[in-house]
Amino acid sequence: MNLFDSIDKPTLLLNRETARRNIQRMCRKAEQAGVRFRPHFKTHQSAQVGEWFRRQGVRAITVSSLEMAQYFARHGWEDILIAFSVNLRQLEALAQLAHRLRLGLLFESVESVQGADRRLQAVADAWIKIDSGAARTGIHWQDVETVRQVAAALQESSSLKLRGLLTHAGHTYHATSPQQICQTYHESVARMNDLRDGLNTCGIAALEVSVGDTPGCSCCNDLGKVDEVRPGNFVFFDAQMLRLGVCKPDDIAVGVACPVVALHPQRQEVVIYGGAVHLAKDHFDLNGTPAYGLVALPRGDGWGDFLEGAYVRGLSQEHGILRMKPEHIQRIRLGDLIIVIPAHSCLTVHCLRRYRTLQGEEIATLNV
Amino acid sequence: MNLFDSIDKPTLLLNRETARRNIQRMCRKAEQAGVRFRPHFKTHQSAQVGEWFRRQGVRAITVSSLEMAQYFARHGWEDILIAFSVNLRQLEALAQLAHRLRLGLLFESVESVQGADRRLQAVADAWIKIDSGAARTGIHWQDVETVRQVAAALQESSSLKLRGLLTHAGHTYHATSPQQICQTYHESVARMNDLRDGLNTCGIAALEVSVGDTPGCSCCNDLGKVDEVRPGNFVFFDAQMLRLGVCKPDDIAVGVACPVVALHPQRQEVVIYGGAVHLAKDHFDLNGTPAYGLVALPRGDGWGDFLEGAYVRGLSQEHGILRMKPEHIQRIRLGDLIIVIPAHSCLTVHCLRRYRTLQGEEIATLNV
Repeated sequence: MNLFDSIDKPTLLLNRETARRNIQRMCRKAEQAGVRFRPHFKTHQSAQVGEWFRRQGVRAITVSSLEMAQYFARHGWEDILIAFSVNLRQLEALAQLAHRLRLGLLFESVESVQGADRRLQAVADAWIKIDSGAARTGIHWQDVETVRQVAAALQESSSLKLRGLLTHAGHTYHATSPQQICQTYHESVARMNDLRDGLNTCGIAALEVSVGDTPGCSCCNDLGKVDEVRPGNFVFFDAQMLRLGVCKPDDIAVGVACPVVALHPQRQEVVIYGGAVHLAKDHFDLNGTPAYGLVALPRGDGWGDFLEGAYVRGLSQEHGILRMKPEHIQRIRLGDLIIVIPAHSCLTVHCLRRYRTLQGEEIATLNV
Repeated sequence: MNLFDSIDKPTLLLNRETARRNIQRMCRKAEQAGVRFRPHFKTHQSAQVGEWFRRQGVRAITVSSLEMAQYFARHGWEDILIAFSVNLRQLEALAQLAHRLRLGLLFESVESVQGADRRLQAVADAWIKIDSGAARTGIHWQDVETVRQVAAALQESSSLKLRGLLTHAGHTYHATSPQQICQTYHESVARMNDLRDGLNTCGIAALEVSVGDTPGCSCCNDLGKVDEVRPGNFVFFDAQMLRLGVCKPDDIAVGVACPVVALHPQRQEVVIYGGAVHLAKDHFDLNGTPAYGLVALPRGDGWGDFLEGAYVRGLSQEHGILRMKPEHIQRIRLGDLIIVIPAHSCLTVHCLRRYRTLQGEEIATLNV
């Protein structure tokens, strides 16, 4: 049976070979740079995909929640960083994990260190979360005094072992070219090193620097003076990464097969079964218009080139509205499948919870 | 134990009394208008919440997917409309359902009628999906000829029984005042009746008209000349409905309790554990700024007034960034819980999959 024959609802397709090639490429890059590779597993959330990393020698991973850490711990991972500022309401469960494996936690205030230290009762690595420009969270990179205080609090702790400074330069996602991405990445790395030097003069020495975002780690040939990189999205990439020039069409490893339920040639639109609950509502800028995904047609056991000018212009709960040229709409019939390349693969994977490889194999995630 | 003591991660709180009052109010409104009430269950997706409707005499329901129809069928519902243009790839499963209960399906082309008729082999109600202004999908309300052709194809079918014309005036969500909502609602109802009259002159008689969107059904005192209304969101409402003037703060029945993980008083921001995978990435316009939710603090076994000027300004996978006034931030400590009133309750419920009532009871949805 053809891969597509059995698909009757929005289905997350995974090109295993492409994902493995992406993994291999990033592993090699980190290796050649002499940098520890601690990939972020929040993108794929799958034990089986995790094994593809393990086969490339990866032993340390990043996750974004306690549940994800517990899941990957059950699947044999023994060095896990939860790259999310420590949640003081989960200390008991965190302590249980820290007893079993090497656990890394994030801190960005003396209060969080003190709160955790009192109740953790297990040894964990501690990273200080730095805002190197993304303005999401973390201590501002120029606020050396606060970082020094947090570092000092960690040095006084018996359970928390200060390991280094960590940042996520998420503002590379707002760049408009690979050049700008590299500039932002290196600026962020330079800020982290300035901070490390500043702390050194305060007597806080031997700190590691951990960075990592897919745009920066993919675009920059030189990863700079860092000890660890933590990209995640690169395993699959997505339409946003393509648009930014971070990857090529052939590097994208996931697409969502969606049944066509209505044709509106006069509006140059096609309606699919595939909405916000399947694709997630992230979008990217396509010449000034928000786009929720790009569009391809099934070809062989996969998908063909992206249809020029076609994109997902809107999503409601179950509906996706695609804008398409008349000559493309002509090739489509009701009940056909369309492949949507999601704007943001991490959120789409989270929504759809399981993969089907192009060979027809089912792969589970944490959320199945 | 206090409701909040056991909460350590983003948790969907449900004020049962408020939801029941919302249900009762809409039931009464439809009853007084002499209109069939076929509430949309895609908002709550829960058998237990469904029972609250049943107790008010509701027997006919709307859903947006085959899975939802199967779920509510398992829970004893015997008159289910799938308000989503028929997916020709699911005809076998639809036929199985149609054998068990009164199933309603949507059609918007002769091709979809013919495709379904050939393979359905079970009797189902057929509604013709009309675009009465929302421009999502459906046959344009002025295109009487296409509607006539679809109606004729349905009349020739042995399995599909033409029941009426159906629309979702989703553009009421883009209104800026209750007055504008009512105007849009009544315009949509008038267009449906014009179309019904037009078909009548072509010899296609006795068609029902089904409409229904929460803004219109909530704001308009007079539901107009319709046979059926299908609102869904009104059961919980949300920040977007509040902003539109469709509901009052006391009508909102869901909030998401989220742990505070970082305080940034200098930026007037607070970071919570509660991101796009919990709250969903829908937003509404708050004085020109996109807002992903409103903010309250826990009070008693529920939440207090919304904090003036506070809103969710950004969501990444697990992080929520709240903009808040300094005097509000002063009252908050790391590890406290914040209640986020989601922008769009339907999508948030879908993300979080289970409720906790203010009495501490767990309520499941289809997706647990």
